[in-house]
Amino acid sequence: MPNTLKYVLPDKQIPASWVNVLPYLKEPLDPPLNPATRQPIGPEALAPIFPMALIEQDIPGEVLDIYRLWRPTPLYRARRLEKALDTPAKIYYKYEGVSPAGSHKPNTAVAQAYYNKQAGVKRLATETGAGQWGSALSLASRMFGLECTVYMVRVSYDQKPYRRMMMNVWGGEVFPSPSPHTQSGRAVLAAHPDSPGSLGIAISEAVEDAATHDDTNYSLGSVLNHVLLHQTVIGQEAKLQMALAGDAPDVVIGCFGGGSNFGGIALPYVPDKLNGSPVRLLAVEPSACPSLTRGAYAYDFGDLAKLTPLLKMYTLGHDFVPPGIHAGGLRYHGASPLASNLLKNRIIEAKAYKQTPVFEAAVQFARTEGILPAPEAAHAIRAAFDEAIAAREEDRPRTILFCLSGHGHFDLSAYDAYLSGQLQDYEHPGAEIAEAMESLP
Amino acid sequence: MPNTLKYVLPDKQIPASWVNVLPYLKEPLDPPLNPATRQPIGPEALAPIFPMALIEQDIPGEVLDIYRLWRPTPLYRARRLEKALDTPAKIYYKYEGVSPAGSHKPNTAVAQAYYNKQAGVKRLATETGAGQWGSALSLASRMFGLECTVYMVRVSYDQKPYRRMMMNVWGGEVFPSPSPHTQSGRAVLAAHPDSPGSLGIAISEAVEDAATHDDTNYSLGSVLNHVLLHQTVIGQEAKLQMALAGDAPDVVIGCFGGGSNFGGIALPYVPDKLNGSPVRLLAVEPSACPSLTRGAYAYDFGDLAKLTPLLKMYTLGHDFVPPGIHAGGLRYHGASPLASNLLKNRIIEAKAYKQTPVFEAAVQFARTEGILPAPEAAHAIRAAFDEAIAAREEDRPRTILFCLSGHGHFDLSAYDAYLSGQLQDYEHPGAEIAEAMESLP
Repeated sequence: MPNTLKYVLPDKQIPASWVNVLPYLKEPLDPPLNPATRQPIGPEALAPIFPMALIEQDIPGEVLDIYRLWRPTPLYRARRLEKALDTPAKIYYKYEGVSPAGSHKPNTAVAQAYYNKQAGVKRLATETGAGQWGSALSLASRMFGLECTVYMVRVSYDQKPYRRMMMNVWGGEVFPSPSPHTQSGRAVLAAHPDSPGSLGIAISEAVEDAATHDDTNYSLGSVLNHVLLHQTVIGQEAKLQMALAGDAPDVVIGCFGGGSNFGGIALPYVPDKLNGSPVRLLAVEPSACPSLTRGAYAYDFGDLAKLTPLLKMYTLGHDFVPPGIHAGGLRYHGASPLASNLLKNRIIEAKAYKQTPVFEAAVQFARTEGILPAPEAAHAIRAAFDEAIAAREEDRPRTILFCLSGHGHFDLSAYDAYLSGQLQDYEHPGAEIAEAMESLP
Repeated sequence: MPNTLKYVLPDKQIPASWVNVLPYLKEPLDPPLNPATRQPIGPEALAPIFPMALIEQDIPGEVLDIYRLWRPTPLYRARRLEKALDTPAKIYYKYEGVSPAGSHKPNTAVAQAYYNKQAGVKRLATETGAGQWGSALSLASRMFGLECTVYMVRVSYDQKPYRRMMMNVWGGEVFPSPSPHTQSGRAVLAAHPDSPGSLGIAISEAVEDAATHDDTNYSLGSVLNHVLLHQTVIGQEAKLQMALAGDAPDVVIGCFGGGSNFGGIALPYVPDKLNGSPVRLLAVEPSACPSLTRGAYAYDFGDLAKLTPLLKMYTLGHDFVPPGIHAGGLRYHGASPLASNLLKNRIIEAKAYKQTPVFEAAVQFARTEGILPAPEAAHAIRAAFDEAIAAREEDRPRTILFCLSGHGHFDLSAYDAYLSGQLQDYEHPGAEIAEAMESLP
């Protein structure tokens, strides 16, 4: 039996529509609240910053045409890893790092750029932390002839120049945040000229930029329903590929920051689960930012500056500043309201890991399967390892499917820190969370 | 008509054998010469550093099993680029950047690691400049349980830490060269403690390491016949994919450093050409290191220290030190003897470009097709542009196929230099070449 088992779909099997799980929920989603009035707001209130068509479910032909540049993405069975772990479990992974930007993020970036182009928008504004989302939106904007402005957290702007350069190659305009280009940025700079910035400040700048320019919309790369919706191409393809393999997962695993990668692989399994399938859906987050496993289920702001609508979600408090772990894409105080609803109703489960065991798994994965994983994706790998080890200890088969959300080409300094014994683990930040919880509205 | 046209082969269409063009040559290859006696040497004289099975042509099952991790690689038609160039030409590209190491190099690294494992070798030693080849061999060695020692030119070791870290993740041991681990290295360090190193010194260290350890073989990533042979999977797949597209190339283009990428895409077309096909085979090199377009066709050493056999090839002289262009993989004074023979006999043609027009083409490619190209691969893109522009000016169709040999994720500082107007072009180094030519044996 070969060690490499790869399941590839023809282009025509890219899904024709996204999967909307809202009709399947046990209890309906709580509505977003107006940050000033605290009254429920409908999608129409978001029109100044989002085009309405974003909630549609059929994938437009122009979006599919760009998806085809890298989709369908491959699904592998990790036979070399199974042998190394000496497990009776079967481990499958869906690899999203083959997109030009290197992660799953373009799945929604392309859709958002398309709908904004249709709506006559000329420019998109967004924030980015480590740069993964800003790269995806710069690429997608360029494909539709839109301009793209990215407010990049200054500390990342200085420390991860390659991501900034990648956005520039695709024509993205990148400002270190806080910047002098917005009132929010200028206010921070006046008080703290050397501010390293934060995702909260960068969101405020991008939202203000969009709100103050008629031709400009704001674009968000995770958390919101339409973002998770766009990512469901991942899980739909994976289901077809698992069928090609003649298999079905006992557990589906995704890393969890805002929720878009986890939603992408897991949401298409939610209807099955509600129809009685025993499949487990496991979200994996960092112990340093444990919104799902330690957060409160409450209304909170999406940003530090309290500019966004209030969302009902698992949150550590919008004042919470996570420690500087290497999985920058998982450092968010809140969580997708949709995923939060599913967790509250026990349709999905959640688990948290410290970064040292995560990198241990990532290195073993790279040495058996070849692909160098992003630190975010490595959280899913760690959970897959533990499922495989549990199967070995129980001496029972188990079929594991996880999403390898991206490659780690721009995260090699984190691997270097791990291999040289310099990786720092952060304790569960109990006191900081308790303090931040007091910021809940 | 969609803009994305992608031609994907099933795993079973990975070629079962490599293409050996030696029987097709108009004149036989000149043999390598013993560096001491200047007498012809046969393959058996290379046994101390290479396993004999490297010249076999059927691809072993264990090699195919690893090829399947990323092969067959996709072939695209660049419709968005064609529109941007307003050309009647059809442009196709074969993308080799989907391998875990990010280039075509693993095609031969895996084969070489396999044959060395079969021969009972425990460790491979090699040199690397910018790190592309060292990464590929570290990965391949790990897949077969071999140790891997890489002598990395010190200036690259210091300036491109990500490539060094990538090798470490795959278990490769990386020494900056000159190193204190070999006599060659110590000699250089004694004379020049701050030496930035060179490919010539690094080759000497790796060859010495292999020659002085019974369990260790030397491995080379380009130039030699067996390396080009292993790369012919690229062109064989491309031929099948062009047939899927219902098309055939008028011109096949590859970038040229030592010759392995060009050989990979072009050699499978050589028998057709010798049977009367009008297809043109175009090798593209940097003006800063123009071995094919300005070199002498003569016997020369492969390295500065004169440790290697003498090879009949186009060469600028083994003393030639190319300017510091960003396409580090194309900075070699010599050329594959096989490709040199084909050029001498006018079966292939060659062209040289300065790096500014190369990066101009690379940025336009990234902005239309999405993928960020390696600077080496961008030489082939530039030539494809000019073929497409010529077709427009002649108002005649033309079918262009080029190899996109790798991604540029570790080369973003070069793009940054280009975009900020800091990229330096080197004049054709005529005087330096004339001087180096005096070193010809």
